[in-house]
Amino acid sequence: METQFLNWLLPQIKKDHRLEVPPGDDAAVLRLPGGKRTVVTTDLLTESVDFRFPTSSDDKDFPPSASAHQVGRKAVAVSLSDLAAMAACPEAVVVSVALPQRGGKKLAEDLFTGIQEEVDAFDVTLAGGDTNAWDGPLVISVTAIGSVPPRGCWRRDGARPGDLLVVTGPLGGSLLGRHLDVMPRCREAIAIASRYPIHAALDISDGLAIDCSRMLTASHVGGIIELASVPIHSDAISLSEVPDTNQLTPLEHAMQDGEDFELLLAIPPQAAHALVEDDPGSLVQQTTMQPRIIGKVTEGFAFAGTTPDGQTIRLEPKGFEHVFE
Amino acid sequence: METQFLNWLLPQIKKDHRLEVPPGDDAAVLRLPGGKRTVVTTDLLTESVDFRFPTSSDDKDFPPSASAHQVGRKAVAVSLSDLAAMAACPEAVVVSVALPQRGGKKLAEDLFTGIQEEVDAFDVTLAGGDTNAWDGPLVISVTAIGSVPPRGCWRRDGARPGDLLVVTGPLGGSLLGRHLDVMPRCREAIAIASRYPIHAALDISDGLAIDCSRMLTASHVGGIIELASVPIHSDAISLSEVPDTNQLTPLEHAMQDGEDFELLLAIPPQAAHALVEDDPGSLVQQTTMQPRIIGKVTEGFAFAGTTPDGQTIRLEPKGFEHVFE
Repeated sequence: METQFLNWLLPQIKKDHRLEVPPGDDAAVLRLPGGKRTVVTTDLLTESVDFRFPTSSDDKDFPPSASAHQVGRKAVAVSLSDLAAMAACPEAVVVSVALPQRGGKKLAEDLFTGIQEEVDAFDVTLAGGDTNAWDGPLVISVTAIGSVPPRGCWRRDGARPGDLLVVTGPLGGSLLGRHLDVMPRCREAIAIASRYPIHAALDISDGLAIDCSRMLTASHVGGIIELASVPIHSDAISLSEVPDTNQLTPLEHAMQDGEDFELLLAIPPQAAHALVEDDPGSLVQQTTMQPRIIGKVTEGFAFAGTTPDGQTIRLEPKGFEHVFE
Repeated sequence: METQFLNWLLPQIKKDHRLEVPPGDDAAVLRLPGGKRTVVTTDLLTESVDFRFPTSSDDKDFPPSASAHQVGRKAVAVSLSDLAAMAACPEAVVVSVALPQRGGKKLAEDLFTGIQEEVDAFDVTLAGGDTNAWDGPLVISVTAIGSVPPRGCWRRDGARPGDLLVVTGPLGGSLLGRHLDVMPRCREAIAIASRYPIHAALDISDGLAIDCSRMLTASHVGGIIELASVPIHSDAISLSEVPDTNQLTPLEHAMQDGEDFELLLAIPPQAAHALVEDDPGSLVQQTTMQPRIIGKVTEGFAFAGTTPDGQTIRLEPKGFEHVFE
């Protein structure tokens, strides 16, 4: 989630003795009675916005359609990714669904196999849920509960001038299919948190440019992205060659596409260099993580990029946003 | 919620070291690292099933249409009621919404005032959420987090033969408007839990008959309801007189109507008599609670009622259920 629920109303959300992290982060860290702390985050997916099912008259192949199994996996994965953004240890999920009355039972069974696969993969408890029938398309909301790691949770508002910006993998083009095969960086986050000092973190769900801008704004700092260092996923190259899409360059896809669910970290320079030079496999077995330094945090509030020819350009915080009329 | 998410798949949901209460209760009691325990429950409401908004061509007055403010209140209240069913202390909620793109912003603002009113009334933290736009009607899912009371959480599977069955208020006819003005019995539950031994509890969300049957089944016992003792709400009488509804008697409405959100408790006889004889106002200031003994728990598995003329009849577990084609 964004803890900034109804984000344009954020200033109305009260500061509260139970909230350890200010509103607006990826998950809430709750202080409960007896000094207990719990991390909680919620995400909701809707048919047509977050996934589409194949139709009988399906002549589209982009974006690829999803199976209910994939939707179940994705719904759990995106909430776990919010826990990863805090380096919280995933413990449990609850799942609420609105299922179409017609065909809802079969749909639910396939959904369930995906949910079960994902919770098993992360040793998470499926603690329950709420099952509803209605005369509408599939809606699924997953709330994930995590525990606080020994050194405390990461947050997005702690980036300091001089920190280096690190992403945990190549970006862009997720709509070619990776948006249905989300790999939350839970294990990587916990391992990184145990070994390196991290000043700020979030998961790149809406696009590097907009999410990086959010981290910098929350931290009251600026940042410069070295554009030639942004790791571009091969899907971003493929997507830039698809004729009926919006003709962005691979770099633009890497900067603006959502649903990569890699982590963006602000790290003191020495630790940042250590992280990118260390063997990822020594941190987490069989990880696909490929950390790369992509820029640095600066004084002031400017969000800029440096081009390969040495120019500095202003960056727009582009990415996915829910828009209302 | 029912923790029995996708309830026909319940046998597939694994018993788990993190679940203190078996699947199928109103909320999950999670054992987290370091001996911490957290209570969690989720509920999802959809337009047309759980509420309806007024339309420009509105010639219906039944059931009454809802304002977005009422929907916000209700969405929080029904999740808090699940915490009340466990005697858990409400701490925080997270809210995810799918809002129609057209008019969604105004809708969200009104929704928010209702959410805020309800969380303030119960001193609960609005910890965050997820805000989505889509080309569909309003869907709202609230997950509530609670803490465990000193004597532990109530559960629904502990009713024992000889226990008396108690409801905390009159039932039936909620569709006349109380379904949009839900009063979760959180304070009452916590106060009752601190003073009386309770063997089993749930909140009556789908109807007394079906919910009582669920408690008895979970507890592997039977029960007899003394039908003349079931407290009938004046709305149940009014609703039985509405010509275009399904012509149930007031008692049938009290037995089958959902969304009363009173508690059903199984209590040892002496404590049950004490609870109904004590002044509710001495337990909770300004409570509207009116506890009444309505029957008793029996050996075996029969679910029966006694009529005023002394006959014993078999009771059907009627009430609201989500149905799929």
